Amino acid sequence: MEKKYVYLFSEGSADMRELLGGKGAGLAEMTRLGMPVPQGFTITTEACSRYYEDGEMIAPDIEAQINEYLLKMEEICGKKFGDLKNPLLVSVRSGAPVSMPGMMDTILNLGLNDRVVESFAKATNNPRFAYDSYRRFIQMYSDVVMGVGKSYFEKLIDEKKTKKGVKNDTELTAEDLKDLAEQFKAEYRKQVGIDFPSNPRDQLMGAIKAVFRSWNNPRAIAYRRMNDIPSHWGTAVNIQSMVFGNMGDDSGTGVAFTRNPATGEKELFGEFLMNAQGEDVVAGIRTPQSISQLLETAPQVYDQFVEVANTLEKNYHDMQDMEFTIERGKLYMLQCRNGKRTARAAMKIAVDLVAEGLCTKEEALLKIDPKQLDSLLHPQFDPDALKKAKPVATGLAASPGAGSGAIVFTAEDAKEQAKQGPVVLVRLETTTEDIEGMNAAQGILTARGGMTSHAAVVARGMGRCCVSGCSAIQVDEESKTMVVGDTVLHEGDFISLDGSTGNVYLGKLATTDASLTGDFATVMGWADELRRLQVRTNADTPTDAKRAVAFGAEGIGLCRTEHMFFDEKRIPAVREMILAKRVSQRRTALNKLLPMQRSDFEGMYRALEGRPMTVRLLDPPLHEFLPTADSDIVALAYEMKVPVDEVRATVVSLHEVNPMMGFRGCRLPVAYPEIAEMQTRAIIEAAINVSRETGNEIVPEIMIPLVGDVKELAFVKKIVTETADTVLKEKGADLHYKVGTMIEIPRAAVTADEIATEAEFFSFGTNDLTQMTFGFSRDDAAKFLPNYYDKKIYEFDPFSKLDVDGVGKLVKMACTLGRQTRPDIKLGICGEQGGDPSTIDFCEEVGLTYVSCSPFRVPIARLAAAQAAIRHRK
Amino acid sequence: MEKKYVYLFSEGSADMRELLGGKGAGLAEMTRLGMPVPQGFTITTEACSRYYEDGEMIAPDIEAQINEYLLKMEEICGKKFGDLKNPLLVSVRSGAPVSMPGMMDTILNLGLNDRVVESFAKATNNPRFAYDSYRRFIQMYSDVVMGVGKSYFEKLIDEKKTKKGVKNDTELTAEDLKDLAEQFKAEYRKQVGIDFPSNPRDQLMGAIKAVFRSWNNPRAIAYRRMNDIPSHWGTAVNIQSMVFGNMGDDSGTGVAFTRNPATGEKELFGEFLMNAQGEDVVAGIRTPQSISQLLETAPQVYDQFVEVANTLEKNYHDMQDMEFTIERGKLYMLQCRNGKRTARAAMKIAVDLVAEGLCTKEEALLKIDPKQLDSLLHPQFDPDALKKAKPVATGLAASPGAGSGAIVFTAEDAKEQAKQGPVVLVRLETTTEDIEGMNAAQGILTARGGMTSHAAVVARGMGRCCVSGCSAIQVDEESKTMVVGDTVLHEGDFISLDGSTGNVYLGKLATTDASLTGDFATVMGWADELRRLQVRTNADTPTDAKRAVAFGAEGIGLCRTEHMFFDEKRIPAVREMILAKRVSQRRTALNKLLPMQRSDFEGMYRALEGRPMTVRLLDPPLHEFLPTADSDIVALAYEMKVPVDEVRATVVSLHEVNPMMGFRGCRLPVAYPEIAEMQTRAIIEAAINVSRETGNEIVPEIMIPLVGDVKELAFVKKIVTETADTVLKEKGADLHYKVGTMIEIPRAAVTADEIATEAEFFSFGTNDLTQMTFGFSRDDAAKFLPNYYDKKIYEFDPFSKLDVDGVGKLVKMACTLGRQTRPDIKLGICGEQGGDPSTIDFCEEVGLTYVSCSPFRVPIARLAAAQAAIRHRK
Repeated sequence: MEKKYVYLFSEGSADMRELLGGKGAGLAEMTRLGMPVPQGFTITTEACSRYYEDGEMIAPDIEAQINEYLLKMEEICGKKFGDLKNPLLVSVRSGAPVSMPGMMDTILNLGLNDRVVESFAKATNNPRFAYDSYRRFIQMYSDVVMGVGKSYFEKLIDEKKTKKGVKNDTELTAEDLKDLAEQFKAEYRKQVGIDFPSNPRDQLMGAIKAVFRSWNNPRAIAYRRMNDIPSHWGTAVNIQSMVFGNMGDDSGTGVAFTRNPATGEKELFGEFLMNAQGEDVVAGIRTPQSISQLLETAPQVYDQFVEVANTLEKNYHDMQDMEFTIERGKLYMLQCRNGKRTARAAMKIAVDLVAEGLCTKEEALLKIDPKQLDSLLHPQFDPDALKKAKPVATGLAASPGAGSGAIVFTAEDAKEQAKQGPVVLVRLETTTEDIEGMNAAQGILTARGGMTSHAAVVARGMGRCCVSGCSAIQVDEESKTMVVGDTVLHEGDFISLDGSTGNVYLGKLATTDASLTGDFATVMGWADELRRLQVRTNADTPTDAKRAVAFGAEGIGLCRTEHMFFDEKRIPAVREMILAKRVSQRRTALNKLLPMQRSDFEGMYRALEGRPMTVRLLDPPLHEFLPTADSDIVALAYEMKVPVDEVRATVVSLHEVNPMMGFRGCRLPVAYPEIAEMQTRAIIEAAINVSRETGNEIVPEIMIPLVGDVKELAFVKKIVTETADTVLKEKGADLHYKVGTMIEIPRAAVTADEIATEAEFFSFGTNDLTQMTFGFSRDDAAKFLPNYYDKKIYEFDPFSKLDVDGVGKLVKMACTLGRQTRPDIKLGICGEQGGDPSTIDFCEEVGLTYVSCSPFRVPIARLAAAQAAIRHRK
Repeated sequence: MEKKYVYLFSEGSADMRELLGGKGAGLAEMTRLGMPVPQGFTITTEACSRYYEDGEMIAPDIEAQINEYLLKMEEICGKKFGDLKNPLLVSVRSGAPVSMPGMMDTILNLGLNDRVVESFAKATNNPRFAYDSYRRFIQMYSDVVMGVGKSYFEKLIDEKKTKKGVKNDTELTAEDLKDLAEQFKAEYRKQVGIDFPSNPRDQLMGAIKAVFRSWNNPRAIAYRRMNDIPSHWGTAVNIQSMVFGNMGDDSGTGVAFTRNPATGEKELFGEFLMNAQGEDVVAGIRTPQSISQLLETAPQVYDQFVEVANTLEKNYHDMQDMEFTIERGKLYMLQCRNGKRTARAAMKIAVDLVAEGLCTKEEALLKIDPKQLDSLLHPQFDPDALKKAKPVATGLAASPGAGSGAIVFTAEDAKEQAKQGPVVLVRLETTTEDIEGMNAAQGILTARGGMTSHAAVVARGMGRCCVSGCSAIQVDEESKTMVVGDTVLHEGDFISLDGSTGNVYLGKLATTDASLTGDFATVMGWADELRRLQVRTNADTPTDAKRAVAFGAEGIGLCRTEHMFFDEKRIPAVREMILAKRVSQRRTALNKLLPMQRSDFEGMYRALEGRPMTVRLLDPPLHEFLPTADSDIVALAYEMKVPVDEVRATVVSLHEVNPMMGFRGCRLPVAYPEIAEMQTRAIIEAAINVSRETGNEIVPEIMIPLVGDVKELAFVKKIVTETADTVLKEKGADLHYKVGTMIEIPRAAVTADEIATEAEFFSFGTNDLTQMTFGFSRDDAAKFLPNYYDKKIYEFDPFSKLDVDGVGKLVKMACTLGRQTRPDIKLGICGEQGGDPSTIDFCEEVGLTYVSCSPFRVPIARLAAAQAAIRHRK
């Protein structure tokens, strides 16, 4: 049988969303529910895919179906294309499976031509309205279908107004508009080279193609990437009989929500405008009225609308966003969809819907976008203050939250001046040495770097607001100034950053705090009830650990010990260790670090109150701990009482061509076992001390990074277990501990069966695994990935969302092989992606034990884990 | 049944080599053949593995077997351990499955103690001989079993000689030696803290453990790594009844080969010494006699030995290396094994053995070590000249061959001065910009860099001799001097490099040329007959292509187009292209490069005379083509008529943190499609021109590098096919071409099923694939890999030999997935490892179509491919 590419509204329903798009499915569902819907048909998303497969053309079989359904539509509506008595006018609108508001194209009033418009003027008894509709149609069609920009036509309108000596479009007469329509057609001919199509069928096919094409316009591509919408879905096209809200005072148009989308309150919320079309509402020339006033203006219509709204909400078990038009006193529904809402509203609506018995907890949870939670966790700018403020620059919304403070240009200054008051750290880009300064600042602004730059990653980890890659600012760190537009800002000047939008403001904006109680707590409680995956956090300080526990973390999945090494009190000992020429010297330096590391871990274990913690042994290349500027080298040499040449030689010898793939991770203890010995001793001693102090049982999990071969792991594990067992004997302690590894190197993934003979747990380090599986470095990819997005080679950033086809295949393989060797192996993920909902869905699918993410992503992960569990249980 | 860990010589045979080791299997085989072998037993290699598994101890079950076989041995020999009338004295020797000469330990005369030596003196009627044997045993045992160095004992001998006023050991009397034995035991007690063991059984167990331990001494580990011997094999231990060649003038000892190991001539070749032990021959105090003279000295023994030698060669079907001892006129065979031989001898012996009907072609081919061929292909120093010369420094033998010339310190100077006479390029390390200079030089010497450094890789590719990582020299490129020891060398001074040993000599050494005819040609002919794998070469110039064809290459598997970009006439246009701000500017620059690239490819196609060629599109990051020094940037700006800041900004913007994982490979044409267009046009036009000119059918193979995702490949492939089809149309040509990809990124390997929908062939780029699979960069790994070898984590360099367990798993997966999609997909390998015999064996196993390697490795690959085919056919 021939494939069906076209459906009458009366043939579809709400659950055909993928095929008919959101709008099409909504129209069909409302039709099915017997609501007043101007009738028509939907061309499926599969037809859109065919359009692209067939080399951007509509194949004859599809065109035939469209023509067939046009006939059916004419019959249903009792109108005909081009008919002079009863002409069919239609709207042609896009409608993707997931709402992409404003991203694709729409054409209204299609079906008009010189003869039809005349009879339409007569039929409506409103020539001005008819000719205005006509010239709007020509303008819209020219723009959308042929790419002839609006400016050509606006110029003609302006000329006409000048000639007539009037100011507003509304002052133009029917005759003026008729004349303008003629001029528009002439302009079309001039620009396009052929006559404006007068045959409505030709107009229709042109419009349908334009909608298909608009699926791949740059702003649609960008929107899809930001919202994880696959490009192969395609858009449907809806052909709907026109109704007019501008046919007089008994006509009108409006938009409404069944609940308040800002607060979640259960109240009809929206606005309408009489004698107007949708675009008038948007244009803002006239102020719309609140929907409640419709009760006075048109009580019958209002009652009918309230009933429709209630029915729709009950039908969809969710808050609805509806568009309607009133034509000569009669209500028409043009759209319904699940309404977008703020995070706060999402919480309240979910809790209320369950309380009202409109849906189950599971259904309610699935309605919440986990990513939205983020905005609830960080302090926010006061919405009123934001409305008044005007951004001076916009960068990437790298880490949400609000940050106001005095500008500082170095991490040192940040630390120092934060004692006097809030500061914002402004840098070209940040480095690992800036961490303390970043922590001291209210926000971080960088001129370079993407969503996964150092600044962005660290800031998200800290829950610190960050705007990165803000190319509109010029930073001169030397002279401590930044230039934005024509303004030169100096150290101490106040700025405000909105990490949720990427906006930068001058001066100080007021903020409001986050709250984790009420509806939020209820929703999180449901999520915890329903999820299978455990949720841990990546944290390196007791403060972060406590915050994460407050956010619901069940332990630490990744404690990076190197962050403890950068503290200014410790770095001298770290450098002494690196510059050591003999093992004995190195041990002396490590002995200085031991009490500090031990107290770090004691702090962590206390903060965790018995929850588990996976500690990763030292990971970064050693050169990160040494200075590179010659003056700093000289200073260090002086401090260390070592010849300058010797320090310089060490710096040079540690230089690496590709530091990402250099002397780091477990390669360090293979060369210097004493580093792993010190760290193990610190971990085990801390665990013994805190366990004796608090009575909590502690099972330290020691994780060896960057393993590629089981022998490598066995070598380092032996150092760890021998040290641990020695410490346990010394202290007469009886404590269990586990030794495991990161799976972050492709070779480890493909030999995971061997690795599991030694590893008691795996933690997937998907940052590094992604880099090596794709063969590009996170730091460098930012330069060429934009080309990949533009050319639709990649649709999302593989560092923020796990690449299931490639990296995921290795993860799956490692899980399978690991379980072959050790059926009860504990499996986790601790990369940046551990807090990404689609990645969490994958983790549920492959059956990981836990995900670990930055503290501020813990609630997101809890919800996403619950959603994944619900989906996979189905 | 209990596992058997011990075998009498009479229980074994030649084919038990893995279990009994080479020496043990040889002794067993000679016993089996009824030859005169002092009897004994062999402890298996499995016992060695048990020794390590059990924590470096001999388990009771194995000890029991040893004792049981000792009893059997006593019975067979009619002698007893510790017996005063007829004492059993034994040698304890290591014996790995593959010969590791001198790498492990040996103990002779075991069984002597204070009482046995006395009766031994009486029985032999030679007290001096007896006490000399005793003191030698104590010394050897102390050294080998307890690590008490020889120097302690030599000091005592020296004191004794001074006291006695004699010069030579031979002047010491029996009484002196008896006294020394006492002193030796006292010294042992002093150093070790316990008495020297007097019980022969205790001596024996100590000696066995020492041999097991010696399997893991540093020189054995290093030898295994150089010779690809797995560490899990272990060594066997041979306990053999002692015979003495120093019992008088009717006794003696010797070593002989059944054929001349230097030339391959069929003649008994060797030497002997009467009244001597093996170590006397080695010590070189007395000059041994040629084996032919044994006919006069001991005609009966000589005849018997000739018969034994003939029998052994016929039995083993190979040239034998034998050790023998004559005790009181009776011949004893102590060892036989396949003899080591020079490459030239190996060729002749193989051809002769087949001619004599001693083995088949297949068997003959398997006897040749493919790696040895290398030395036949490069010009060699005259052996006499080498003997007289003394190296002044030794680096890594990075690329074999002989190179003499005047020192130059820059690539420019090399090119310039090579016109006057031979030069040797001396650099700290080389870069891609040095390629022309390297090509102009006779040899390359670098102070830094490993076996896989840039210099080493490029030099091997060029067949240019190279000594890399020669840390004993200090190079000052600025002042154009190098210092070696106390000698300062200046530009123009002559040095000679031996790339086969890594030796550096002052002055000029005479050389001899390579010959590819005679036995070599015969052997290669057999290899070509028997192999399944095709052998291609990696070549970028017509000269290299012709050389490779002369070496038997069947085409080019990898033509790197970037090497053509570094030519000084071209680099301005390349830089112009990189600095271009607009597509039109870039096209202008590319148009300048087009005729040059086209003529490059024309040259290649002509040289290949119809053989296929895979051309890889531009691969390296663009910054490699730009200068980094500020003065060069200024010069370039001047040359290009572009502001200095602009050039500097481009250099900075192209800087990469991890260039390995940066903006390179197919990422370049994704950003700049016009580069791929130009290269495709050049390839296709060249193919059309040469095909019309010569009448040869040419099927260009265009290879897209660094692909990680099928969409990426599809994007670039579309550029290539559209361009190619346009050119074909323009030229009215009818020519087929293929588009394929490198598989060098892990993601490409795991998604090879998808990649194969677009790729018509795969070529495994195992250099990059190894880097990314292991997660370490070749440039950086040299620093930490030595730790891995020392600690036995890695046993070989994964860049010179494919890592079958990890990288190989990805290759296998890619082959399987690729064939799923495209059953006839052409599969090749073009990394450095493509010329490595063990890698080639793997390629045969997974069924690749071809291997591609540097020109000088082509004969090696042909032989290795034949061996692999023979082995896998079995």
